[in-house]
Amino acid sequence: MKPYIKTAKYYETDQMGVIHHSNYIRWMEEARVDMLSQIGYPYRRFEEMGYISPVLHVDCEYKKSVKFDDEVQIIVRLQEAGRVKFTLRYDIYNMSEDGVLSAYGTTTHCFLKKDGRPVLMDKEMKEFAEAMKNALEQA
Amino acid sequence: MKPYIKTAKYYETDQMGVIHHSNYIRWMEEARVDMLSQIGYPYRRFEEMGYISPVLHVDCEYKKSVKFDDEVQIIVRLQEAGRVKFTLRYDIYNMSEDGVLSAYGTTTHCFLKKDGRPVLMDKEMKEFAEAMKNALEQA
Amino acid sequence: MKPYIKTAKYYETDQMGVIHHSNYIRWMEEARVDMLSQIGYPYRRFEEMGYISPVLHVDCEYKKSVKFDDEVQIIVRLQEAGRVKFTLRYDIYNMSEDGVLSAYGTTTHCFLKKDGRPVLMDKEMKEFAEAMKNALEQA
Amino acid sequence: MKPYIKTAKYYETDQMGVIHHSNYIRWMEEARVDMLSQIGYPYRRFEEMGYISPVLHVDCEYKKSVKFDDEVQIIVRLQEAGRVKFTLRYDIYNMSEDGVLSAYGTTTHCFLKKDGRPVLMDKEMKEFAEAMKNALEQA
Repeated sequence: MKPYIKTAKYYETDQMGVIHHSNYIRWMEEARVDMLSQIGYPYRRFEEMGYISPVLHVDCEYKKSVKFDDEVQIIVRLQEAGRVKFTLRYDIYNMSEDGVLSAYGTTTHCFLKKDGRPVLMDKEMKEFAEAMKNALEQA
Repeated sequence: MKPYIKTAKYYETDQMGVIHHSNYIRWMEEARVDMLSQIGYPYRRFEEMGYISPVLHVDCEYKKSVKFDDEVQIIVRLQEAGRVKFTLRYDIYNMSEDGVLSAYGTTTHCFLKKDGRPVLMDKEMKEFAEAMKNALEQA
Repeated sequence: MKPYIKTAKYYETDQMGVIHHSNYIRWMEEARVDMLSQIGYPYRRFEEMGYISPVLHVDCEYKKSVKFDDEVQIIVRLQEAGRVKFTLRYDIYNMSEDGVLSAYGTTTHCFLKKDGRPVLMDKEMKEFAEAMKNALEQA
Repeated sequence: MKPYIKTAKYYETDQMGVIHHSNYIRWMEEARVDMLSQIGYPYRRFEEMGYISPVLHVDCEYKKSVKFDDEVQIIVRLQEAGRVKFTLRYDIYNMSEDGVLSAYGTTTHCFLKKDGRPVLMDKEMKEFAEAMKNALEQA
C-alpha cells in the first residue's frame, strides 16, 4: 500500500489562511477511493454492481493546520471490521512541515443492496473484506 | 418574481479574505433553482420526469468582491430563448455594500430526454418556456 | 433561539443522489455562525478583534440521507464548556421528511489570541461564555 | 510545460451522475497554480510579496461530461497579455474517454499592489510576463 499524496488547493483555503476543516473529510474520501483502487476493488465498480455505500459516521481531530500548496500524505488503516460495518482510520501528515501529523480521523461505512438491505461483509463480500484486512495495517 | 437572497458563508471564503470566485457559479444555480420554484416548475420535478438538464456554458464577470456574512441579492432574467437552448442572466448585488453590483454572468442550458435527444423547447416544453418568458424580465 | 433553517442545494448532492456527507460539516458551521449572530456575538467580530477560532474536532453520525431541495432545521446546543475549549452539539432534522432526525454531531473549538495563546474562556471571554450558556439549551 | 493531470473526485459529482459544472472552474485554478510552479513563479510567492491577484472573468464551455474517477488532462495557454490584464485559456481533455475535449474556458486576471493599484505587467512584472509568454503556447 502506497500512502495517498495530494497538494492542498487554493480553493480549499478559507479566510483564516488555512485549509477549511470540512475539506479534510473530503481528503479522507480521496484516500479511501485511492486505497480501494490499490487493492483491486475500485469504488466505481461497487456502484456499477448496484451497491450503495453510505457513510455512517465521520470524525476528525485537527492538530495543526495545513496551508495552501502544502503536500499531505494520508495513511489509511483498518480500525474495525464488523459483520455489517467497517471503520477506516486516516492519519494526515504534512510533508511540507517536516511530516508533522496534521489531523487524524475515522469513517464508518456499510454496503447496501438495491433493496436497501445491508450486505453481510463476512459472507457476501468475503473476498473484498479479506483483501482489505490483508492490505491495510491494523490501526 | 422575488430576487434570490443569500448570505455568504464562511466556508465559501478563501485566503484572499473574500468569497472564492467559483462559488458565484454555485450561487447562480441557487438563484436558478429558486426561480424555477417561483414560477411553478421546481427543478426536481424535471429530473423526476426523466429529463436531464446539462449546463452548456457559464460566464461570470467579477466587479467587486463579496465578503463573509455579506447579504447578496440575485436577479435572474431571460437573456435568450432558442428552440433547444436558453440563456439566463444573473446580476449579483451586495446588499451589505449599499447594493453595489458585485458580479454578473450567464448560464446556458438545454433539456435532454432519456434517449439523449434534446427537447424542442417551443414544442415539447411550450408551457414552461412561456412561463419563463412571462415571469422573467428580458435582459 | 430560533433553529437554523436551510434548503439543500443541488451542488451539494453527489452521484448517490443524496447530499454528500462532507456538506453536513459545512451546515454545522452555517448553524454555528447563525447562532453567534442570534446571541449578539457575530463571528466576523471575533476575527475583526484579531481572534482566531480553529476547529479542534468534528464528528457526525448520519442517520438518514437528505435529498436535493429538502428543508433541514438545525438545533444547536452547548454540550460542554471548558476553560479553553467548548463543544457544540447539532441535531439536523429533515422537515421535508416529517422532521426525521437526519444526522447529529459535534464541533469543538477554542479561541486563540494574535500571539497564538489560547483564550481562557471563563476569564477573558466571560460575557460571551455566559451568553452562550444562557441562550443554548444544554445538550 | 507538462499538462496538468487530475482524477475526478467522488465529492465533485452531483446527482446527475457527472462532475458538477462549478468544479471545472476550480480545476482551471488547479491547472493555473501548477503552471505557475512549473515556470518558476509559484502563486504562493506572489501572495507572500503582498500582491493580490483577483479573478476578473471566467467562462467555460461544456462539451462532454466528465465522470467520477476519470482522468483529465488540462492544457493551459496564454490567450491575451495586456498591460494590466492577462487571459489564460484552458482545454480539458478526458483521458478516460479517448482524450475527448470535455470543456474549454478562459480566466482573466490582474495583480494588485497592497494599496489596491493595479500592477503594470509589462513594467513591474516584466520578467514574469516574459516567462509566461515564453512557456505557454499562444492560444
